[in-house]
This record gives sequence, C-alpha cells and structure tokens, in this order.
Amino acid sequence: MAMVCLSDFEAYAKKHLPKIAWDFFAAGADDCSTRDENILAYKRIRFRPRMLRDVSVMDIRTKLLGTEISFPVGIAPTGFHQLAWPDGEKSTARAAAAMNTCYIASTYSTCTLEEIAAAAPGGIRWFQLYIHRNRAVSQQLVQQAEALGFQGLVLTADLPYTGKRRDDIRSGFRLPPHMKLKNLEGAFEVCKMSPSFHSLLDPSVTWNDIYWLQSLTHLPIIVKGILTKEDAELAVRHGVQGIIVSNHGGRQLDGGPATIDALVEVVEAVQGKIEVYLDGGIRKGSDVLKALALGAKCVFIGRPALWGLAYKGEEGLQDVLRILQDEFRLSMALAG
Amino acid sequence: MAMVCLSDFEAYAKKHLPKIAWDFFAAGADDCSTRDENILAYKRIRFRPRMLRDVSVMDIRTKLLGTEISFPVGIAPTGFHQLAWPDGEKSTARAAAAMNTCYIASTYSTCTLEEIAAAAPGGIRWFQLYIHRNRAVSQQLVQQAEALGFQGLVLTADLPYTGKRRDDIRSGFRLPPHMKLKNLEGAFEVCKMSPSFHSLLDPSVTWNDIYWLQSLTHLPIIVKGILTKEDAELAVRHGVQGIIVSNHGGRQLDGGPATIDALVEVVEAVQGKIEVYLDGGIRKGSDVLKALALGAKCVFIGRPALWGLAYKGEEGLQDVLRILQDEFRLSMALAG
Amino acid sequence: MAMVCLSDFEAYAKKHLPKIAWDFFAAGADDCSTRDENILAYKRIRFRPRMLRDVSVMDIRTKLLGTEISFPVGIAPTGFHQLAWPDGEKSTARAAAAMNTCYIASTYSTCTLEEIAAAAPGGIRWFQLYIHRNRAVSQQLVQQAEALGFQGLVLTADLPYTGKRRDDIRSGFRLPPHMKLKNLEGAFEVCKMSPSFHSLLDPSVTWNDIYWLQSLTHLPIIVKGILTKEDAELAVRHGVQGIIVSNHGGRQLDGGPATIDALVEVVEAVQGKIEVYLDGGIRKGSDVLKALALGAKCVFIGRPALWGLAYKGEEGLQDVLRILQDEFRLSMALAG
Amino acid sequence: MAMVCLSDFEAYAKKHLPKIAWDFFAAGADDCSTRDENILAYKRIRFRPRMLRDVSVMDIRTKLLGTEISFPVGIAPTGFHQLAWPDGEKSTARAAAAMNTCYIASTYSTCTLEEIAAAAPGGIRWFQLYIHRNRAVSQQLVQQAEALGFQGLVLTADLPYTGKRRDDIRSGFRLPPHMKLKNLEGAFEVCKMSPSFHSLLDPSVTWNDIYWLQSLTHLPIIVKGILTKEDAELAVRHGVQGIIVSNHGGRQLDGGPATIDALVEVVEAVQGKIEVYLDGGIRKGSDVLKALALGAKCVFIGRPALWGLAYKGEEGLQDVLRILQDEFRLSMALAG
Repeated sequence: MAMVCLSDFEAYAKKHLPKIAWDFFAAGADDCSTRDENILAYKRIRFRPRMLRDVSVMDIRTKLLGTEISFPVGIAPTGFHQLAWPDGEKSTARAAAAMNTCYIASTYSTCTLEEIAAAAPGGIRWFQLYIHRNRAVSQQLVQQAEALGFQGLVLTADLPYTGKRRDDIRSGFRLPPHMKLKNLEGAFEVCKMSPSFHSLLDPSVTWNDIYWLQSLTHLPIIVKGILTKEDAELAVRHGVQGIIVSNHGGRQLDGGPATIDALVEVVEAVQGKIEVYLDGGIRKGSDVLKALALGAKCVFIGRPALWGLAYKGEEGLQDVLRILQDEFRLSMALAG
Repeated sequence: MAMVCLSDFEAYAKKHLPKIAWDFFAAGADDCSTRDENILAYKRIRFRPRMLRDVSVMDIRTKLLGTEISFPVGIAPTGFHQLAWPDGEKSTARAAAAMNTCYIASTYSTCTLEEIAAAAPGGIRWFQLYIHRNRAVSQQLVQQAEALGFQGLVLTADLPYTGKRRDDIRSGFRLPPHMKLKNLEGAFEVCKMSPSFHSLLDPSVTWNDIYWLQSLTHLPIIVKGILTKEDAELAVRHGVQGIIVSNHGGRQLDGGPATIDALVEVVEAVQGKIEVYLDGGIRKGSDVLKALALGAKCVFIGRPALWGLAYKGEEGLQDVLRILQDEFRLSMALAG
Repeated sequence: MAMVCLSDFEAYAKKHLPKIAWDFFAAGADDCSTRDENILAYKRIRFRPRMLRDVSVMDIRTKLLGTEISFPVGIAPTGFHQLAWPDGEKSTARAAAAMNTCYIASTYSTCTLEEIAAAAPGGIRWFQLYIHRNRAVSQQLVQQAEALGFQGLVLTADLPYTGKRRDDIRSGFRLPPHMKLKNLEGAFEVCKMSPSFHSLLDPSVTWNDIYWLQSLTHLPIIVKGILTKEDAELAVRHGVQGIIVSNHGGRQLDGGPATIDALVEVVEAVQGKIEVYLDGGIRKGSDVLKALALGAKCVFIGRPALWGLAYKGEEGLQDVLRILQDEFRLSMALAG
Repeated sequence: MAMVCLSDFEAYAKKHLPKIAWDFFAAGADDCSTRDENILAYKRIRFRPRMLRDVSVMDIRTKLLGTEISFPVGIAPTGFHQLAWPDGEKSTARAAAAMNTCYIASTYSTCTLEEIAAAAPGGIRWFQLYIHRNRAVSQQLVQQAEALGFQGLVLTADLPYTGKRRDDIRSGFRLPPHMKLKNLEGAFEVCKMSPSFHSLLDPSVTWNDIYWLQSLTHLPIIVKGILTKEDAELAVRHGVQGIIVSNHGGRQLDGGPATIDALVEVVEAVQGKIEVYLDGGIRKGSDVLKALALGAKCVFIGRPALWGLAYKGEEGLQDVLRILQDEFRLSMALAG
C-alpha cells in the first residue's frame, strides 16, 4: 500500500501495533471530545486563496528561538516510543535530525537523554519536563539536558494530575516489563503508567516555579499547555521564551477548546513578545498553513510521529515529515 | 467489566433490567428531543482552562441551604426505585448518607417515608411533593416529612399532567402488583402509573399555593421545574428558598430547552437571592463543573442514580457517586 | 400495534399502501430538501415553558373567518384520496365533520363536490382551486362550490407548473383507470397526473385574477402558497381574507424555506389585518402549538390525513385528529 | 433506467466507466472537503419564492461577452474526454453547439483544436490555457485558437502546481497509451498526468502575464480560479473581460471556500465592470438559479458534462444540458 498521506500511517499503526499500545497512543480523556475537536476545528477554517502570484521559489524554513529548522513542523513530546518501535526515541531523534527539525524529548522516554543525544549528535532538541514532588529529580534532569546540548526546556503545564482515559483504565495499561522510563530509573522505582503513577508529579506547581526553573538553567523556557489569553499574559510576565498552545492531544481535560481555536487569543495576547507554537490535530500540510496564518511560528506533531515510527522507525517518521513538508509547500503555493 | 464511567452503568442497566423497567426510566416525551438535548447541550459548552495554579489541595464541599454536603451532586427525585433494586428507596437513602450528600425522596416512592428515614437516620433528605386534588393527602405528606426530619420540601411544578411517553403507552406500563406507592396507600387505591393515574394530581395549582404550603410547614421550599427568568422572578417573589432548573429529564414537554442552557437566565434573574440547582443530563464530573461555573450551587442526578441501583443497589449507587466525585475533582484541578 | 403518534400511521401507510400511491403522497421536488426542512425546522424551535399556572380548564376552540372549529387543526387540500381509501374524499369529509374541523377539498378530488357535500352535510368545508387555462372550468367549479355550501375558496398560488418529483417521473405515475378526477370530467378528458397534465393549468395567473375571482363569488378568498412578506402585503392589498403559508409540502420549488420559518415574516407583514394559517411538517401537537405561538390562527395537515385514511378511512383520520388534539391540549398545559 | 436528474448520470458513469477514469474525474484534493463543500453550500441557500406572477412566457437566453447562448449553462474546461467517450472533445463540441451554448475546450484535450473546431463549425467556443514554462508553446496555442475561431481565452489561475489527489497518486494515473494530449504533442513528449507532468507549467505566472497575453491576441481574456474580492479587483484592474469563480472542482487547494459562497464578494468587488461566471457544484436547475440570483451571468458544468459523455457521448451530454435547462426554467417559474 502506498503511503500517500498521514491517514495511511494511522491506518497502518492501528493495524500493526499491539492493541494496548494503539489504545494508549490514541486515548483521549472522558468522551474524547477535545481530542476530536482538535481535528474538526481545522475543517471549519477556510482559506481565502490568492492567485497569480509568483510561487516558483518558496522558502519554508523558519527559526525557533533563533535556530533555523527546515520547515515549521517539529516533533511534540510523547512518551514511550519503544511501544511503537524497538529503538524508541533514538529513532525519533535520528529522523528529526535527518529532516533538520526540532524534536522535543519527553521526560517519559524509554531511552536515556544520553542515548537520545548520542543517536543524532547534531540534532536540534528540546527537553520536556514534568515537575516532580521530589524537586531534586527535576533539577537533575534539567541540568543533565542542558549539559547534553538540549537547547530548550519545555514545561508541561496541563498535567497536575493525569486525565481520565477510560480505555487505559480498562486495559490496566502498564509499560511492558522490558521497557523502562530510563530517565527516572535512578530516582525511584517505576514501571507502570497510571493515575497513581502521576502522583509522583507535583500538583502544587505555579507560575512562581518558573523562577525556580530559571535559577537552574540558562536554557530558554517554553510553557506547554496554554489555552487562554490570561495565561498567555502570565507567561510573558514570567519571562518565558515561548508558548505551546496545547491541550495534551485531548488527553487531559475533556471539554476544552481545540488548539487551533485557542491559538488566536493567545497570539493576540502575547503581541509578538514571545514565540507561539501549537500542537494537536495537525494531519495535513494545509493544517500547518492554517496554524501559521493564524499566528503560530511552528507546529508540533504528536500521534502522527508515533504512526511514522510504528511504520518503519526512523525511516517511517522521515516519510511522515516529508509528506507534511511537501503538502505544506504545495498548500502555500496554491494559496498564493 | 470494569465500571469506569457512568455510561458503563447505563449499559449494565439496559442489559439487566426488565425491558419495561428500563423503558420507563429511559422514557422521554414525544420524540425525546428535550431528553437528548439535556446531554448534547453540555458538549457545546467549552472550558477556558487555566494552568499552573496550585491544585494540590481542593475543597469540593458545598452547602445546601446551610447544610454541608461532601460534593455538589445530590440525588434527584425519581419514582419506583424497587423497579431497579429490591430494597428500593431504602438503598438510595443509605448510599446518599454514606456519601454524605442530599437525597430528594419522591412522592412516588415504593418505600414509605418512615422506611426511608429509618434506613439512614443521619442522612440529608428532602421530600418531593406533587399536589393532589385531594389537598388533605398532600398536607399529610408534608407534615409527615417534616416530622420525620426531612429538611426541605421540593415542589414539582412541571407536572400538571403527565407528559406523553410513547413507549410507556405502548407497553401499558404499570407497577408490578407486589410494588406499591406506599406513601399514597392510605389515601386511595393506586397501582398503575398512567396518564389517568396522574389525574389525581391537581392541574389548577398556581404560585398562590406556595403560600398554602408555607402555612403547612416550616421547611424551606424549593421549586423544581423552572426554565425561564420570568418564573425565576416569581419564585423569588413568592418567598421560596431554592429553584431546581429542570425539565423532568425531558419526560414532560418535548421541545423545551436543555437545563444547562436555561440555567444562565435563571441564575441572572435571581441575582443571588436564593439558591439555584439543576438536574438533567449530568453524565460526567466535567458536566458538574460546567453547571457550577454557570451558577448552579449543586446538581442532582436522576437516571444515573437508578443505573447505580440497578447495578448493585446501595453499593452501586455509591460507585456512581464516587466516580462523579473523582471526575469532578479531577476536572476542577485540570481546569485550574 | 397501538397507534400512539402520527409516525405510527405513517409507518402503517408505508407498509400497506401500494408503492406507487405511497410514493406519490410522499414525493417532494428534486432532492426533497424543502419537504424535509418543513419537519426539521420545528426541532430547532424551543419553547420557554411557564409553570404553576392554572391549566385545569383549557379552551382549544378557535374560529376560522368567524366559524368555530373544535381545535386549530384542519385538513389541507390533497388530491386523489381514493388512492388511500376506497371511499376517498367522502371519508375525509365525514371525519372532519365528526371532529368539527375544517376540510379543504381539492380540485383534484376523486369524488365530486356534490358527493363530498352530501357525505357530511353539516361539515365546515372550503374548496381549493387551480385556475385553468379554460377559465370557464374554474368559474363553474367556484360557483358549484358556493352553491353546495362550501364556505371558503382557497386559491393555490404556487403551482403554475408542477414541481419535479423524480419518483413520479420514474414510476410514470397515473391514476388507476377506475379513478377519475370527477370534478373535471365534464370539462375535458383527463386520466393521468403528470407534468403535461398540469399544462391545463394557467401559468399566467397574477394577483389581478384575485379581482376576477371576487367577481365570481361571495366566498372569502384564501391564498395558499405565500412564503414572503412581500407577497403577504400583496395579499392584503388585493383584499383576500386569509393566507395559508405553504410550500405545497415541499412538492413544488425545492430550496425554499420551511413554512414554520416563513410564518414569522408573513405574520409580521399582515399586521393582523387578515388571518394567517400554515401547512407543512405538522407531526405532533407541540408543532401546532409552535405555529400558533408564532402567529398562525390554525394549521392544516396534508400527508398525516392521508395516512389516517390509509389506516381505516374515516375512522383512521379521526384517530389522527384526536391524537393531535390530545397532544395539542397537553402541550398547552405543559407550556403553561 | 430513466435518466431523470444529473445524479442518474453520475450513477451511470460510476458504474460503467473504468475505475481509474471515474476516480480521476471524481478526484478532489486531500480530504475532498472543498469538492464536497461546492455541493453542500447550495443546500444552505434558500429561495424567497414569489407567487402569482405571469410565468407563462420566460426568456432564459443570456449573452456571454455579447454572444447569445440559449440558457446560462456552459461546459467548463475539463481534460481527457476520450476517457469518457471514444470521440472525446469532438462529441462535447457537437453537444454544446446543438444546445447553442458555450464550450470551453481544455489545453489538455485529447482532440486537437482543429478537430474540435471542425466537429461543430458554428459552435460558441472558448479556449482554456495553462501557461507553460516554454512560453512559445502557450503563444502558439493561443494564436491557433484565435485562428480557429475560438471566441474567448480562459486563463486558469489556480494551478501553479497540481493539487494533491490521493487516489490518482495511489492508482498511478496515466493516460492510456492510445490517447494523447494532442494540442501539446508538437511541443514535447507527454503521456502521463502526474505532479511531475505539471512541472511543465510555469509557477511564476503573475498578473503581469495578463499584459503578455493581451499582446498575443485580440480575444477577450477570462480569468478562471478567482475566489476573493482582492483578486477580483486585480482582475478588473488588469483589463480582463470576465472572471470564472472556481476552485477547480475542489481538485487544487483543499480548504478553500465553496464557489457559490465566494461568488458574492467577487460580484460585489467588480461592481458590474466585467462579467462574473461560476463553476463547481452545479447539480440541479435550482443551483443555476441560485448562482444567477447571487450575481453570476452564467455557470459552467464540469463533472456532469463528463457523466453525460460517459452515458451516450454527444447525445448523453445533450440530455444533461436539456435536463438542466428544463429544471432551470421550472425553478424560475416556481420562484416567480
């Protein structure tokens, strides 16, 4: 079967992944209405295409906090890549580097940060952080990421507790015994992903903890999970460098807005003072163009990256990125 | 099968209850459009979630007319609990008391008010009243409820006649012979629920009868079935203590608004002078949060309570309440 | 099977009528979007129900141009009743008279006006007129109707040509040989209903022909098929006594508005100077109440009357009317 | 089976064409949302029909840039007619001439312009042009069309690159070996339709190239593919004679507006200075009437013309045009 668009990779992954892994990646909170809204919202947005412009040469490169990437699509932080492909996050890192784009490695990686860094030495990488009740764990991870050449720190703001994903509760989802959350192994014994697991995370984190993070690292800080103008203004005021408009792929609070719908008020609120990115619902190059037209500097893909891994590891993820790149370039040309 | 969310209890009840009982509980008037709107309307309401707030400690208790309950979800008045579970309303009373919340016992209970009161002596209970043509019957019930320690009187305002529920007419729904409307046995011979049955109710009741009720009892009076600002203002003017925004679960007039949609104008009209509650369509903790965000002090569940009873009686209803409580707390945390 | 609501009669008719007759009655123009909109539009209209009003006594009688009917639902003009029941329009006339409401007999009846008048001598009847190219035919029909005691003349304004009903073209619909358009037999040989049949009608009719009709008869004139305020104003200016807001059951122009949606602007335009009625899409008593709340004096049912005939002739149609009457009364009570 | 409406021809073509041909004609870009919107948008537009107007005589002729056609529906440019019928564009030309309407022949015809001209000498024909990187090719085609009596030059503005039509990529669509793009044979070897094929087209074309075209020919120039008021104003300013509001049947940029929705702003922007036409989504005579009511001077049909060819070549296409003509006339009459 020819892999022509991202849905082809989705179909492949659904067919070939173990059901429990597919379910975990696909899961949304409660009725999954926010997860699905992320996608539906794009269909309600219509271009006003312009014609007869010279589109023979187009430059689709952009810069993330000053660093050039080949096109405005990066890899969002998602956990447990070994569930999709044996080499896990190492393959992800290699694919992102090969496509010259940014990969945000998750705290919940099944490879260590060292392994990720070593897999693709020249790659552009950010590190995604959950703040643990045991602050020493978080501090150590941040400093390790900085030492390994990660170039940005992404603080996930929307997970004081884990969202209620019914299928994961029903299936009693846990990582298989041979996979580990390697970045946390030193810190405590962990081998299952469940609400109780996340009780290791600190639900008392507030905006003041941004100052604590700034005291730990020179890395720029990007806050992920912002959906309102009020929080966007707080982010600016607390001196972060970027915002990822995100609802955690619809896996946290069900009933919130689609990210593409929330983007507009966030962009307006920050008034260009910091960079605004988005994840959630990107399935076609024209979705990328819509997000950029509404003010995002770059978008990140979550589930589609996992489908690419599930298809052929590093190579499959490159296929996904290349298709998005081609579709994005074509959409730009056709929209003038 | 794990009982993870309220839909699981619904599926269980549909499968295990006798069809005639399921149909009676599920019934809506006419085309059931208002019954279904009660649920659909929640999906159109979207949160604006706030991040990075300290949600490590949350207080979800509230007060109903001064009495504390453990979280803002009570049991709406519904009839015939023995159709769902042999112990009927006694189980309901015990479950509500165990969860420290309010149970509104229906005039059409299959246990006596004495039995209900005795089943859970310390419980918080209100009594729901239909006014009969024979006013002596109603007077006696009100005074009995007050004597038994019920703490509120809920007057149902939307049932001058019974709504047209097609399936009940087709099935010729009646209570099985071994069940009785025990609170009405002394008053007259009744063993079937049908339009003619309700001809015992008085369709000439008006706001002036609130004064009559006030002359009978010291209990606070809550009017159930209000859907417009005009009636909300009348309720305030007639000195009642609370309003339940309700459309009788879509069982009365088909074509009225969803309760969550009507809530806003009612809350605005009362200007905080009396408490406003809501029933209808609550299926998830996030629905509770939406109702509270729009001004309800507390919500009440009808059909979900019956599904819980059908699952495991008192224990099943506690499961339902506990799931709602957990989901409500989680939604609050995730919405900041 | 119990006949509980009008849909039950529809299901019965669909099952028991010859397919060609069912298809003819059910047909809408083109894609049937207007036919279906007539029904869907009611679902978008929501009551604001009022509570605690004395609804023990309700008067549902109304007057059509001064003549009292038992409730505000009459029989719209439809053709070929013998396709539904052997006695045809005679049964229709008897049922309407038994229920003390108004029956608008169609030019395309399969009984003569004499037969219809004789079947139910005391009934309230109007006569529906198409204007033929041969004006003598129309003149004779009008004068015959007046002589026979019909009390109103309904001019159909929306059929200069027949709408395109695909199924009728495919099936080559014609009246069976033993049925005749008896009111037209004297005038010309006719035994098929098809676009060419309607070429006997005069597409050049204009508002000025109202004056011609007024010169022929003392009967009040009601124009059927008005959907805009502009035409409503013209109707008033030309001295007609009433308007039926109608789109011919969606059988003429596909793509026009639902009648309940068009009603509002028509009612506003006539400013109470003449009576406004409506047909199209009435399936429940609450639909009747919605139309009255929006300004209609009375509604007329088309297809549901045919389903009633198909069920049990005169008796079946009475069942349909009685159900609507009960539902209308109940809706009034529940809406306060 | 009787061919009653255009959907009947669609069903026939789907059943009888080779799958690869059907898929090519049916294809839309990406998710086909714009292709489908073209049709859905008509359903949202509702007539305000007027009654009692003299519709006994109606003139449905119109003029395209001064040339009379029998009714306001022409044939939009589509390629590869031999895929639908052996005689290809020759049949199309004959059908259009027989119905006295305008046929826009595509650059990608499988007959030469000479053959097309010779097939129906008296026909009204325009020539559709893509501008090639090799400008000499385009110049030669324009001058040949003018010499052969084509009366207008239609510049396609929305295809700097080919849209992404997933099914064509999956099927590896190519013209069968015995078919040729005969108008391009002299210029270069071409036998497949694919993204790379279109790389022969010049993506650097801008509004300035209108001046170049004007220098090559005395033919009026019509720009096809305009969807915004901004581009409509540019078209006026650059001295073209007409605009076809078009999104290439939804085959280019997915996510743009339906053409009937874009029509309004284009008509407003040109203020009557040039003629505005439309293609996309026309399936019934009432769609034609809607487009004209919103300001189009004429519409063009694409896929329905191909279905007509697939049914019976020249005769089938005439059937399609005749049905549209009858439906259009009837809609006009019924809408007053």
